[in-house]
Amino acid sequence: MRTVYVDNNATTAIAPEVLQAMLPYFKENYFNPSSMYDQARGAADAVTRARQVIATIFGGIAPDEILFTSCATESNNTAILGAVKANPHKKHIITTAVEHPAVLEVCRDLQRNGYEVTFLPVDASGQIEIGDFISALRMDTLLVTIMHANNETGVIFPIADYARIVKETNPEIIFHTDATQTVGKLPIDLKNELNHIDMLSFSGHKLHAPKGVGALYIRRGTPCRPFLIGGHQEKGRRAGTENVPYIVGLATAVELAQKNHDPDEHRIKALRDRLEQTLTEKISYIEINGQGAPRLSNTLNVAIHYIEGEGILFQLNQHGICASSGSACTSGSLDPSHVLKAMHIHFTAAHGSVRFSLSRYNTEADIDHVSQVFPQVVANLRKMSPYWDQKNNKPREDIKLVDTKHQE
Amino acid sequence: MRTVYVDNNATTAIAPEVLQAMLPYFKENYFNPSSMYDQARGAADAVTRARQVIATIFGGIAPDEILFTSCATESNNTAILGAVKANPHKKHIITTAVEHPAVLEVCRDLQRNGYEVTFLPVDASGQIEIGDFISALRMDTLLVTIMHANNETGVIFPIADYARIVKETNPEIIFHTDATQTVGKLPIDLKNELNHIDMLSFSGHKLHAPKGVGALYIRRGTPCRPFLIGGHQEKGRRAGTENVPYIVGLATAVELAQKNHDPDEHRIKALRDRLEQTLTEKISYIEINGQGAPRLSNTLNVAIHYIEGEGILFQLNQHGICASSGSACTSGSLDPSHVLKAMHIHFTAAHGSVRFSLSRYNTEADIDHVSQVFPQVVANLRKMSPYWDQKNNKPREDIKLVDTKHQE
Repeated sequence: MRTVYVDNNATTAIAPEVLQAMLPYFKENYFNPSSMYDQARGAADAVTRARQVIATIFGGIAPDEILFTSCATESNNTAILGAVKANPHKKHIITTAVEHPAVLEVCRDLQRNGYEVTFLPVDASGQIEIGDFISALRMDTLLVTIMHANNETGVIFPIADYARIVKETNPEIIFHTDATQTVGKLPIDLKNELNHIDMLSFSGHKLHAPKGVGALYIRRGTPCRPFLIGGHQEKGRRAGTENVPYIVGLATAVELAQKNHDPDEHRIKALRDRLEQTLTEKISYIEINGQGAPRLSNTLNVAIHYIEGEGILFQLNQHGICASSGSACTSGSLDPSHVLKAMHIHFTAAHGSVRFSLSRYNTEADIDHVSQVFPQVVANLRKMSPYWDQKNNKPREDIKLVDTKHQE
Repeated sequence: MRTVYVDNNATTAIAPEVLQAMLPYFKENYFNPSSMYDQARGAADAVTRARQVIATIFGGIAPDEILFTSCATESNNTAILGAVKANPHKKHIITTAVEHPAVLEVCRDLQRNGYEVTFLPVDASGQIEIGDFISALRMDTLLVTIMHANNETGVIFPIADYARIVKETNPEIIFHTDATQTVGKLPIDLKNELNHIDMLSFSGHKLHAPKGVGALYIRRGTPCRPFLIGGHQEKGRRAGTENVPYIVGLATAVELAQKNHDPDEHRIKALRDRLEQTLTEKISYIEINGQGAPRLSNTLNVAIHYIEGEGILFQLNQHGICASSGSACTSGSLDPSHVLKAMHIHFTAAHGSVRFSLSRYNTEADIDHVSQVFPQVVANLRKMSPYWDQKNNKPREDIKLVDTKHQE
């Protein structure tokens, strides 16, 4: 059976060009980049070049403003805890209710340790009210950390505006963004549009580089203490021998995404839009999570009332379709996604939500397959649903759904 | 010019078998191991198998006592800071003056933050006086962290004895060891010889797996809080999408080291011993750092009086020989190694120290080359040394060397 992989917000296939670029650093160029002999220069130069490539693509920042890490989680932990350690006298942090756990859980941990954290709510489309944002800012705010785009719904936040407002309020407030879902998808220009941003996290495996490498932009002068301690690497800001192959792979992936960005983006958006249109036409009681908000072109999160996301995914799996019901990072939990809960999506819809996330490797045939299979799967599951009136093909009117678990 | 790589304590070449084992996880098996569809099972199973392989080789511990990390630095940071966070009421830590910076710097950072740290001194052979160790233990000691073998000198510490003494003193004291230099070289039996150890760190790139992966053994029941926060991976103990290829590579490397351990060890030791003997015969005013102590079979750290290590390395480099003067993690500094300083090696000897560290890939021809080149290099440099009496081929007697920088 053919596999249709439409779960690219969870992880991506490694680009063949990325693997090719990495291989020499697994073979002949295995040296420690910190070593002094000539042979190690190849490894050290490769790290330098990778830093330059990313710095250039990010609008011409200084290469040493890019710090390589082991993943976006480490980048996020470094940004938040590094800012906290560097500013011991400030105790207020602003974030959103819909961040990835790698931000959310760090903020909750700080909250348990005496920090005051404002978790900005979102509206039904997943957006933040600008008024909420502005009123949350205080003169003693230490850090604002707001994601660039949401991993589950693809909703894009106007972080350029937020960062500008933050700096107008108090230039000492640090603005961090988790751009794990946008690097490679949206332009990242830290010298122009995003010039008020102090720190930006991302990882390799969302843009066709391997799992196990990430980076953190730290604008020069931003007070941020190291997270991993114990070596001079990365100018003392991140200890640990450099993962040369993956660093090369990360830069290659960023470069590839940049090179073919416009045609890829155009094609991916067309595929996503076609899928969205077909599903909304063929399926009743369907909603698009994040509709009305600016969204990533590759992401489609649909809520199917009266059936369970888990059941949908199970049946999609039988047809070779790899999709997900939320973040892979919180999988295993039967609770509906914290993102959809924050959007106040009705629990029957949140429970029945499925995310399709595309990449440059998806084809028309992939979308045809999903467009054909998904409505069938929904129909099959609704046949079994106690809430569904099969005869009239609509929800039963005699059953009133009550969210016993999540009502407050 | 042929390269003779004798800097395997800095990093190692990736074993071809390790690269082969990793490749499928860069290609078809790129899925996120947390995903629920069948296709992801290959990745999840690979991580499970890797954990089992290491657990078995480590004496039959439970697989979930192994936590995968991004490097030994992360393992060490996790062990020490995790223990500290889990035991907020205890403030005393014991370590040694000769730890790797990934332990030493974390302890110094804690010291700056109100912790009391005992840095155990070492004697001229790099060993700890057992009396010093015992008197340092207190009822309120939180953690003892002592390396298994030193990366610069290869001196092996009797950690089985230390751990037993710790547990006899107070079973609540946590015993951690940085085994980065010993996994793959010494047997690691956490159910028998090393059964009193609570936590053990190591990394892949010292045993022919890539840079960018490590692991931490945490014995069940050991109070240790997570370091990287924000995802359910590794049972909530280490957030971040699993680096499947490298995890597979790490387990393959541990397995390979185990399979061929005895013949490899025998051959490596014979090569090292031959090099040691040749150099001590051919070179005057030479000392073996760590002599008299049990040492790793692959490591030879020689002190050459009256010349500079930097100059030696530069000339060795001209002959294709890759060696180092200390830890690659502290390179760039002109200070003599903190390890040799702690051993009270005379500064002219510490400055003139060079480490050769072998691996299974070294050959007789490699050792012949070093045995031939190194004495020539020493002779050349001594010709230029203001402290050397060329006519009589011995140190000048009219110059008394004073360590202006390091005398106290």
